[in-house]
Amino acid sequence: MDLEEADGDTESLSSSFLISSESPSTGVDVDNLSSWKGELSLLELFLSSQQSRTATNTSMLNVHLVPHTHDDVGWLKTVDQYYYGDRNNIQHAGVQYILDSVIDQLQQDPARRFIYVETAFFYRWWKQQSQNTRRIVTQLVNEGRLEFINGGWCMSDEATTHYSAVIDQMTLGLQFLNETFGECGRPRVAWHIDPFGHAREHASIFAQMGYDGFFFGRLDYQDKARRMKTKEMEMLWRASESLTLPLADLFTGVLPNGYNPPEGFCWDQSCNDAPIRDDPDLEDYNVDEIVQRFLNVSYNQFSQSYIKLIKVNVLYSTPSCYLQELNLANLTWPLKTDDFFPYADDAHDFWTGYFTSRPALKLYERLSNSRLQTCNQLEVLSGPKSTSGPFGEGDSDTMKRAMGVAQHHDAVSGTEKQHVAYDYARRLATGWAHCEVLVRNSLAVLSGSESPRVFCENLNISVCPLTESSQKFSMNVYNPLGRTVSWPVRLPVNGSLYSVTDTNGKAVNSQVGNYVCMSFKLICNIYDMKSSSLLPLLSVSINNKSVLMYVFKFLKVTFDDTTGLLSSLTNLETNQTIRLTQNFYWYNASAGNNKESRQPSGAYIFRPNSSDPFVINKTAEIQIVTVSSTVQEVTQWFSPWVSQVVRLYEGHSELELEWTVGPVPIADGLGKEVITRLDTDIESSDYFYTDSNGREVLERRKDYRPTWDLKQTEPIAGNYYPINSRAYIKDDKHQLTVVTDRSQGASSIYNGSLEIMLHRRLLYDDFRGVGEPLSEPGEFFDGLVARGRLLLTLTPPNMAADVHRPLAQGMVLQPLLSFQDGTPLANTKLEFTGLQDALPPAVHLLTLSQWDKDSVLIRLEHQYQAEESKTHSQPVTVNLQKLFSTLEVLGASEMSLGANQWKEDMNRLQWNTGSQFFISLTFEQIITLNPMEIRTFLLQVRQL
Amino acid sequence: MDLEEADGDTESLSSSFLISSESPSTGVDVDNLSSWKGELSLLELFLSSQQSRTATNTSMLNVHLVPHTHDDVGWLKTVDQYYYGDRNNIQHAGVQYILDSVIDQLQQDPARRFIYVETAFFYRWWKQQSQNTRRIVTQLVNEGRLEFINGGWCMSDEATTHYSAVIDQMTLGLQFLNETFGECGRPRVAWHIDPFGHAREHASIFAQMGYDGFFFGRLDYQDKARRMKTKEMEMLWRASESLTLPLADLFTGVLPNGYNPPEGFCWDQSCNDAPIRDDPDLEDYNVDEIVQRFLNVSYNQFSQSYIKLIKVNVLYSTPSCYLQELNLANLTWPLKTDDFFPYADDAHDFWTGYFTSRPALKLYERLSNSRLQTCNQLEVLSGPKSTSGPFGEGDSDTMKRAMGVAQHHDAVSGTEKQHVAYDYARRLATGWAHCEVLVRNSLAVLSGSESPRVFCENLNISVCPLTESSQKFSMNVYNPLGRTVSWPVRLPVNGSLYSVTDTNGKAVNSQVGNYVCMSFKLICNIYDMKSSSLLPLLSVSINNKSVLMYVFKFLKVTFDDTTGLLSSLTNLETNQTIRLTQNFYWYNASAGNNKESRQPSGAYIFRPNSSDPFVINKTAEIQIVTVSSTVQEVTQWFSPWVSQVVRLYEGHSELELEWTVGPVPIADGLGKEVITRLDTDIESSDYFYTDSNGREVLERRKDYRPTWDLKQTEPIAGNYYPINSRAYIKDDKHQLTVVTDRSQGASSIYNGSLEIMLHRRLLYDDFRGVGEPLSEPGEFFDGLVARGRLLLTLTPPNMAADVHRPLAQGMVLQPLLSFQDGTPLANTKLEFTGLQDALPPAVHLLTLSQWDKDSVLIRLEHQYQAEESKTHSQPVTVNLQKLFSTLEVLGASEMSLGANQWKEDMNRLQWNTGSQFFISLTFEQIITLNPMEIRTFLLQVRQL
Repeated sequence: MDLEEADGDTESLSSSFLISSESPSTGVDVDNLSSWKGELSLLELFLSSQQSRTATNTSMLNVHLVPHTHDDVGWLKTVDQYYYGDRNNIQHAGVQYILDSVIDQLQQDPARRFIYVETAFFYRWWKQQSQNTRRIVTQLVNEGRLEFINGGWCMSDEATTHYSAVIDQMTLGLQFLNETFGECGRPRVAWHIDPFGHAREHASIFAQMGYDGFFFGRLDYQDKARRMKTKEMEMLWRASESLTLPLADLFTGVLPNGYNPPEGFCWDQSCNDAPIRDDPDLEDYNVDEIVQRFLNVSYNQFSQSYIKLIKVNVLYSTPSCYLQELNLANLTWPLKTDDFFPYADDAHDFWTGYFTSRPALKLYERLSNSRLQTCNQLEVLSGPKSTSGPFGEGDSDTMKRAMGVAQHHDAVSGTEKQHVAYDYARRLATGWAHCEVLVRNSLAVLSGSESPRVFCENLNISVCPLTESSQKFSMNVYNPLGRTVSWPVRLPVNGSLYSVTDTNGKAVNSQVGNYVCMSFKLICNIYDMKSSSLLPLLSVSINNKSVLMYVFKFLKVTFDDTTGLLSSLTNLETNQTIRLTQNFYWYNASAGNNKESRQPSGAYIFRPNSSDPFVINKTAEIQIVTVSSTVQEVTQWFSPWVSQVVRLYEGHSELELEWTVGPVPIADGLGKEVITRLDTDIESSDYFYTDSNGREVLERRKDYRPTWDLKQTEPIAGNYYPINSRAYIKDDKHQLTVVTDRSQGASSIYNGSLEIMLHRRLLYDDFRGVGEPLSEPGEFFDGLVARGRLLLTLTPPNMAADVHRPLAQGMVLQPLLSFQDGTPLANTKLEFTGLQDALPPAVHLLTLSQWDKDSVLIRLEHQYQAEESKTHSQPVTVNLQKLFSTLEVLGASEMSLGANQWKEDMNRLQWNTGSQFFISLTFEQIITLNPMEIRTFLLQVRQL
Repeated sequence: MDLEEADGDTESLSSSFLISSESPSTGVDVDNLSSWKGELSLLELFLSSQQSRTATNTSMLNVHLVPHTHDDVGWLKTVDQYYYGDRNNIQHAGVQYILDSVIDQLQQDPARRFIYVETAFFYRWWKQQSQNTRRIVTQLVNEGRLEFINGGWCMSDEATTHYSAVIDQMTLGLQFLNETFGECGRPRVAWHIDPFGHAREHASIFAQMGYDGFFFGRLDYQDKARRMKTKEMEMLWRASESLTLPLADLFTGVLPNGYNPPEGFCWDQSCNDAPIRDDPDLEDYNVDEIVQRFLNVSYNQFSQSYIKLIKVNVLYSTPSCYLQELNLANLTWPLKTDDFFPYADDAHDFWTGYFTSRPALKLYERLSNSRLQTCNQLEVLSGPKSTSGPFGEGDSDTMKRAMGVAQHHDAVSGTEKQHVAYDYARRLATGWAHCEVLVRNSLAVLSGSESPRVFCENLNISVCPLTESSQKFSMNVYNPLGRTVSWPVRLPVNGSLYSVTDTNGKAVNSQVGNYVCMSFKLICNIYDMKSSSLLPLLSVSINNKSVLMYVFKFLKVTFDDTTGLLSSLTNLETNQTIRLTQNFYWYNASAGNNKESRQPSGAYIFRPNSSDPFVINKTAEIQIVTVSSTVQEVTQWFSPWVSQVVRLYEGHSELELEWTVGPVPIADGLGKEVITRLDTDIESSDYFYTDSNGREVLERRKDYRPTWDLKQTEPIAGNYYPINSRAYIKDDKHQLTVVTDRSQGASSIYNGSLEIMLHRRLLYDDFRGVGEPLSEPGEFFDGLVARGRLLLTLTPPNMAADVHRPLAQGMVLQPLLSFQDGTPLANTKLEFTGLQDALPPAVHLLTLSQWDKDSVLIRLEHQYQAEESKTHSQPVTVNLQKLFSTLEVLGASEMSLGANQWKEDMNRLQWNTGSQFFISLTFEQIITLNPMEIRTFLLQVRQL
């Protein structure tokens, strides 16, 4: 149970408290029963008639009891182990039994209520129920006795998820609920009682999905103490700086005890509080004591002494009923405009490690999203044959569900046990295997050729059996973005001379290099390359100890001749140069053995032993690897376990840093948290900027929080923030933006400096339940090797978004490569585009997915914030009927962002903050997108 | 689940297996649900139609699934803590939730069955149910879907309980079931799946109560192995050597896995076996594997290879359904005539310590039985005013329930946690407090005087404020036996000259002695006594170092002049003398640190480190304490923590040894198991004799078991047997019988020797769950001081029963003393007898208890075995109508022993053993009792 304080309208005697009684946190039905019993007894103590339980009483203090459960979609066990109650030696939890017993208990008293959150579990359970049980459940839902809350496939992580995948996983859950229960199954409240900090973009998404409010459990302990004191535990969150008011406004409440009940009221399986012992003939009768304790808790939350004179009305309720009551009270709420990161539950306990934990899983999840979007698009574009075609039965559902599960707050967050991490990855792989069939079928339809295609999964380690063995092969590139991209392709081959042609038979600029060089342990040969006339040669070779410079059309990069490190970056177009030194460091992870605190670094917690990281190496050995007309590469060797390839591509304005870190050595008994730090002469002072779930960007300031007077206790960990796609520092002239390939932790500790945590290997568990030190095994070595890319751009601040927005979207939605042996058959259609035209630069095709037989779901997004781009931060129009080349749009209906409600039916509760606003809705085929707006349509389509 | 092997009728294709699925052992409802789910899935795998689940199939191998629960009536938690689910930090168990969920689940499928055992819990639960729930439950019982099994207040211990209390606790439970559910609530099968060895007398009681069969879980591991091999896990137990066949015959089955399921089928909360994962879309689908495993288990239990060819029919069932099937099969069963003690679950793991564990609780329970019988009798004899009279509201029910709970196999057994032991004692004290009011009211009715009475609870430590302070007081003695007894009374007083008179004002032989001497720590004064002329003086005083001798009318006892120990015992009536040395020893309890086994001694297990006990002292200092015409006492001092008073009473033929042991010192780091050993020149060879639950006597033989070829691995612990009231050794001429005041462990390790374990104090837990070393705290010292009495008689063997039978019954049913200050008021009736006449010597008044407003329950017992007494082992008659002095018997109906069925309606299943028998029943007012027969009647009475 959690007591939720209503904002104190001290003039009103009628007030509502939200008490949520988790039954159970660990997922065992006994708790439901014991909780019911406990609560029922409590109710009976307060209530004389059955009827009065169903309503609030305006002359009393209303205490809302909200029985709920919190079922992790994987954590210590896999999602299916939780569902079945398997491996109970790890954790005693079986979700199927929770649902069994909840349905059962709801039937026994019409006053009872229950809320359910995670559709991934409910879907599994529903599949196995009899028609009779389904009828009963439907009835309970229709009567509001079983209410779905949140309703996404999972309760997503907020720090490490990308908005694209979050919207998808919410849609997946909401779609199931909508199809199964209709309007009564539509969740009205978002409910994130466990995620470890809260992203503003999540609030924005929930608002756009039509939720009336949002409850969560975890926020910084200092913030919480202040809010408890100032009675700001409930507020209105204005979650976008761009969207029209009140599109992204969301009523938000903090549960004072997280998902725990007030002391003494925990009748969960994992608790040992005394039950209500209400038989005076038996031992230890305690009803009077429990009633008094309950009243004390209620009064204390309300914080008004005079309230002790009024009566208490206790009722079974749900968060949405509670919200209704609050809304009717017509109170005024404080406004919140920043977010709830980072989260600390004590002075030395910052949950900022998981921003980076399990970097390989985080990348794989991100790549899987890209693949899923491709899979979805091809399903739409090539019609029914994609799911049942020459290569068999394929589907996108498996991948959707795998991605849905992967968004869970112990999945992509990296805070699960190792075997569960493997399970998430396996699910993604299985999902992709289903998609592969779909994609093969699609490409067969679209190309008119059924010759077999292969996908090379291991190109990141330069493995592709077909290209390595074939004398002649063709490659198909599918670009899921709504516009043209230039994308360098690297393939492992065995020959040294290849002729590469495009679909028109025209030669493509290509180069055979050392792409089979798999790792730093091999000595890579430097091929002699003919330099293209377009490129100036390297001015001086490394062997002569002189300055190395890469000059390209867009960028110039210099290396320090004594250290081998980067020394400067120049944007040749804007003619601006900054000093730029980059190196790799590791923080020595606390072992929890110092006097301030016993807290070690772990899967969740980042806690360096010292604020000064150790440098891996003050100097790097550098090596020219490739000089060609398409790419120039220099490798830097920092240590046997840290290296980097610095790359410039023809026609690209970004500098690519491909880092390889691992296996992180721990033989010295020291846990290591590896960062790369970019040190510049940009006068960024204490400010830096990080994205929220890959969309809007928030300003960060060192040792500062916008809404309270921070007492900084962890100078490094307390300044880390999650980045999902980018971070930047800037001053009046320069903005250095880093676009990443996955979610990571980042900070700016020094003026002009930006650091990103890349990899972590730890020796201790951090006491947050996972019970394992984060020390990922590797496939070939003792310890995981992680490899990733940072894309650096240097621009004036007011031109930065024009570069980083498309760059980041290109990183998120990568082209899919497929290969066929030999020459394509005659009559094979070698080129295809699903769009009639490239979308306008400001518009991003967020979703294109088959909805049902005759309709497809499309989401179009304005990908620029208000005012961040001179050219793009403007309203932009799209003609829905002229989007697709293969589909005729017969009709379009705008939906809520979650696609479970017609836009015109959306009617959210409105909340007072003092300001007024006006909503205008337009319904046109030529639609307008305002900055940061996402519009969701169900299109009735016909294949052309 | 346990697979129960049907005796292999290899000609029949239709066979039944009993599979009991405990849900759960630890008492949490989740398990019911998960088990149901598991089993239901299993069923669905085997069965095509709903109908077929309700019946066996004659063409298949029938596997009976028996969902059940095992709910300890106190063990690690108190009975009410188990009921409520309180203190779940100790053990996660809440019985109320089991019953809630069972009833709930039974309603969901008419094919489901459940059995429930412990009425102490069911009674608590039933009290709290709504009329609607009660109606549902009654319906389930009527339909046989909820079946009561065993049905006593608890599942009694078999080693340390007295038959009188066992019959009472069974009656209490069966009476509740009968009144609540009628005939459909009558249990037909006894079910002791946990007690630690099995007493023949329990089987006899169950048979006389009308049970059709008996299932238990624990038997010696060697016995079990042999029975598994020879297919004798099911048998007919012939449980009496005296009762007419087949009165005490009981079909008995051993559950091969105790209360555990076969490996891999445990879906209990405390188990971690993989659940049935039956959704092929989820991970780890395992239905095929589980089905195969289930078939393997079934086939293996059946042990016939050809059976693999036939089909398996799985059905929800109950033990009584299973028994019906077995009975119909008309097979022939092996016969068992001894008992199942001692129980060992491994070579060095003999559960023979609990025979003695918690000696003070064991005594208190026995005394409480005596008080309850008195309370019951007075309630009957004095009518309704006893429960509502001048001293307020009294009742016997509280004491009945407290005694019912105390019979549990972790209660009087001494195998509970310390706080639970305190709870049992507290319940008995509370029960007695209720009875005290009843007794006060009764005595007021019977005496015609309402002046206040007090009961002196602490006479055993010579404390009684009234007698110590009053100049003049009267004492009432109530004798609950059916005949006159001579009973010495010792009272603490402060004066030195008292005049004691009987109800007629006649002087009573009395003596003022050192009765206020409370313990060995005080130096007791030796009062100068005038010797009675009836008594020879002690021949020589101890101060002169000469032989001490007591000579009395019946006995002569000599002491060795050098050791101070007893040296001989003479029966002056029969003129027989034996050499008798008695001393105290302690076995050094194993700490579990030797190479044979890690098993330490503990609450359950007795495992001495060496077969040679340490002697406390080779010599005793002795002191003459009292020499009077009523009693002669000599105290022996063996050590600061072991002493003994040797007593002879006027007119008594037994030698009383009042031992005081404790606090057992453990500062030396050695656990101690203290025995007294009687060494004689009786040629007992390897044989000795112990009673079974205080009734029939079984022959024991060292290092031998009657039914299998014993491999003895613990030469001491493996020869210990429980004694509840007596043990003896004998040869042709002499029988030395020891009657005890409580249950203890005893053995005969040497020819002519008999040892009894008195007290135990241990340093280690013995790994059977209790989780505490048995080291009872004392009230005044560090460690419990225990005090008790052994009554020794020496007779020719064929005269022994004539002495020990009444002696033991007198020890069990002791007079109740109550005191009034001053002289009784005029018109006070000073004497009362409830019986018209003393009962014949062979007849014991076992029960006299108010049944309902108009009827009383009476049990009359023939207290002699067949052939043990020349004079008494004969049929004896009693006229029911001439029993009582205050009651007119209007009618008498004979009942089953459990009083839940008319005797004439008893119709037990009959089982083939090859022999035939004939039953004759008589119905008369003048009833006949055959040796060891108990007859139970409901009498319609009217107060005269």
